[in-house]
Amino acid sequence: MGVKRETITLIGAGLAGSLLAIFLARRGFRVEVYEKRSDIRREPSGAGQAGQADQAGQAGQAGQAGQAGQAGQAGRSINLAMSARGLHALGQAGLQDEVLAMAIPMVGRLIHPVEGDRVLQPYGQRENEVIYSVSRGELNRYLLSAAERQDGVRLHFNARCTGLEFRTGVLYVRDDATNHVHSLRPDRVIGVDGSASAIRTAMMNVGRFDLSQQYLTHGYKELTIPAGPDGAYRMERNALHIWPRGMYMLIALPNLDGSFTCTLFFPHEGEYSFGSLKDPRRILDFFKLQFPDATALMPDLTTLYRDNPTGSLVTLKCFPWHYRDRVLLLGDAAHAIVPFFGQGMNCAFEDCTILDECIETHWPDWGRVFESFGHRRKEDTDAIADMALANYVEMRDLVSDPGFQLRQKVGFLLERKYPDRFIPRYSMVSFHRFPYREALHSGEIQEGILRELCASISTADQVDWNAAERLVEERLGARMTPE
Amino acid sequence: MGVKRETITLIGAGLAGSLLAIFLARRGFRVEVYEKRSDIRREPSGAGQAGQADQAGQAGQAGQAGQAGQAGQAGRSINLAMSARGLHALGQAGLQDEVLAMAIPMVGRLIHPVEGDRVLQPYGQRENEVIYSVSRGELNRYLLSAAERQDGVRLHFNARCTGLEFRTGVLYVRDDATNHVHSLRPDRVIGVDGSASAIRTAMMNVGRFDLSQQYLTHGYKELTIPAGPDGAYRMERNALHIWPRGMYMLIALPNLDGSFTCTLFFPHEGEYSFGSLKDPRRILDFFKLQFPDATALMPDLTTLYRDNPTGSLVTLKCFPWHYRDRVLLLGDAAHAIVPFFGQGMNCAFEDCTILDECIETHWPDWGRVFESFGHRRKEDTDAIADMALANYVEMRDLVSDPGFQLRQKVGFLLERKYPDRFIPRYSMVSFHRFPYREALHSGEIQEGILRELCASISTADQVDWNAAERLVEERLGARMTPE
Repeated sequence: MGVKRETITLIGAGLAGSLLAIFLARRGFRVEVYEKRSDIRREPSGAGQAGQADQAGQAGQAGQAGQAGQAGQAGRSINLAMSARGLHALGQAGLQDEVLAMAIPMVGRLIHPVEGDRVLQPYGQRENEVIYSVSRGELNRYLLSAAERQDGVRLHFNARCTGLEFRTGVLYVRDDATNHVHSLRPDRVIGVDGSASAIRTAMMNVGRFDLSQQYLTHGYKELTIPAGPDGAYRMERNALHIWPRGMYMLIALPNLDGSFTCTLFFPHEGEYSFGSLKDPRRILDFFKLQFPDATALMPDLTTLYRDNPTGSLVTLKCFPWHYRDRVLLLGDAAHAIVPFFGQGMNCAFEDCTILDECIETHWPDWGRVFESFGHRRKEDTDAIADMALANYVEMRDLVSDPGFQLRQKVGFLLERKYPDRFIPRYSMVSFHRFPYREALHSGEIQEGILRELCASISTADQVDWNAAERLVEERLGARMTPE
Repeated sequence: MGVKRETITLIGAGLAGSLLAIFLARRGFRVEVYEKRSDIRREPSGAGQAGQADQAGQAGQAGQAGQAGQAGQAGRSINLAMSARGLHALGQAGLQDEVLAMAIPMVGRLIHPVEGDRVLQPYGQRENEVIYSVSRGELNRYLLSAAERQDGVRLHFNARCTGLEFRTGVLYVRDDATNHVHSLRPDRVIGVDGSASAIRTAMMNVGRFDLSQQYLTHGYKELTIPAGPDGAYRMERNALHIWPRGMYMLIALPNLDGSFTCTLFFPHEGEYSFGSLKDPRRILDFFKLQFPDATALMPDLTTLYRDNPTGSLVTLKCFPWHYRDRVLLLGDAAHAIVPFFGQGMNCAFEDCTILDECIETHWPDWGRVFESFGHRRKEDTDAIADMALANYVEMRDLVSDPGFQLRQKVGFLLERKYPDRFIPRYSMVSFHRFPYREALHSGEIQEGILRELCASISTADQVDWNAAERLVEERLGARMTPE
């Protein structure tokens, strides 16, 4: 790719920042990365300390929002669900195999009802249609080291961006060790500093900057199911466990050391909420009643519940993402989403792929690089934001609904029969790299077809295949070409 | 009302801030008001200097957003459309008569087509159903003096709020004369500091603060039609003049000195836009073609177009508006809207009325005062925000549509026949004080009825009154009780 020797300044060395540094270095740019936290590689390793919930991290399967959100404590134990888009970006950077070696495949959702049998709902129907549980901390450490190995990448830790003046181009960075504030004048700044982005905050002063941030009325808290003797898994290892309970839910993702990281998604306020449930005795009673099997595996439940922070869940959209040819937002800084589709990190990694393509096409016209990135990506990131919100309802409610389970089965049958016409939305998002907007659009059509086909049947073998043929032909005419 | 002697701190002495100070003082509170601008009463009086557009002000009939938005230059020449809600609040403060004395009644929209006759579309159908053109600057000066006359009110000018720490309650105020930053610890702070509110910016750090700010793709620029000899009005005095042109429009409001303040609403970018139209010759050609009669009355057109700033138009929603019993947002700081319904100031003044009622009910429990204010008011301010956006389409486009004019006439006929059932939306908003949410809701029903009744007629005397009776009965069953 030739040595370009231009310098790009990144704010944030979380997952997106460290991967982007690698992409840029491979294109021959010098990359200066400023990260407000200390170097997490010098902290004790995380996996297995799942109880020490990370105040900085977003919880859940794709806790992306807090990647560089608050101070300290990064990379402890949060699990992410890695899927096709994330893996593809890692593959482009030559890192896919090593990351897969630190990941645990999850073949489906394992539903834990209050009473009765657990049910495994497969995510896909092919052997490779799985998603991967990865430790945020492990992945971040790995990517930081991989970035540092690249020629031209320099990482600066304890270096907090405290402001950016758009008119003059002056960037202020405070050295947390000395409290000294340096002023820099970088040619190009990319804010990959997460949902609480300092760069985005600075962009709010530029004028005509659209922004929307909406918090869920639900928050989250991390809990732990420790490993059994000799690192044995005390539940099925290769699944994402869900205890769906309508107004709230518990989930659990496997760690390499045999433990599971659990996350309780729960209202902030109301009769059953973080606000009202504070007494250890009542907490235990509530858990025993609602999540009996999980509770039996959590000896430290009430202590963890008391000590671990309660996190918030935000959907953040804004536009434009760039300022002339000088500043760009990428990843959560531009579009933070809730974790219920497991796409936060995957979406940010796909941003790196797309920006790289825009550089390929438009460099050295950085104004066009940034503008085309935003125009190409905005509708897709809006789409995944909306699908992630919709998936919360699905996860905490529908997954235990027989009608939902029937539709999912019929969806897989349709995919088998029309593999280039009917690819279920979850698969389009997680196992393929169709633009998110297409998954949103097709998913709506699919839902209509499935509701019609399932309206008067109770098992998947009763499907009226003539009706199916007609509906697919009418509504999903164009063939899909998976990449 | 008794002397309460608690102190309330207001940030902002624009229209809402100065009126709120009066309301609070009349309830017996001490009020400390910090205003970042200098005292506009010491600047040269504004009316008649309509060309000296005010960078701080929002334009148009109800330019509320910028009331304390940017630095300096306040209160020059921006006109506002005062209507029932604003007048009612002024009346509660005992100020209505004096304000009416500085206002010019406008009986309707006077439409200027490119060719053909001008048409007056009355706003209402009763003698008192008019709105009033008022100079923002004159009104602000008047309210500041009225506030200062109240026992217990102290105004501090050149005193800019630079931050508010929610945890500690410390408020930072910089004296612009000395650049010295004072730190205060007020018990209660109300941010009435406009659409660019410093208090709201500080609230974004508190957590779980929902916010949305959306800019229009159109901006605005102020122009002037000067008075004729001896202060003669060169167009009809008692009307709001509109040159609707689909993708853009020009409006003009009368000033007391015989001049008109004109505002061009125009896209920021595109073929015909502020971005593309910069050459004086092309500007003049464009105006002559699109607004021939107005252009003939604007000798300084190209100079004003060049020198006056281009403003932006934003809709801003956020929630919650309060932090515990300590901080509240009110007026544009809580809900900035576009000026096309002439309701920005009226809505902010109505906020004062409602907050006063909440104090009456819940004081001294300030937490409940603030919470009940937000719950009572949020849906209404969202409704007027949406109606104001919808009115932009109406003003620049529909008002020149014969179908729209027919529906408006039939609407007035229906109001005459069913005065307690069918009150046109514009009247509900501008001549009555129904909650905005009711106007939004009734307006949608009214529009449906009018479209049905007008579908196959071309003049108002062809209305099928049996159908009208049935539709009103079916869809507008509940009687309305104007206050």
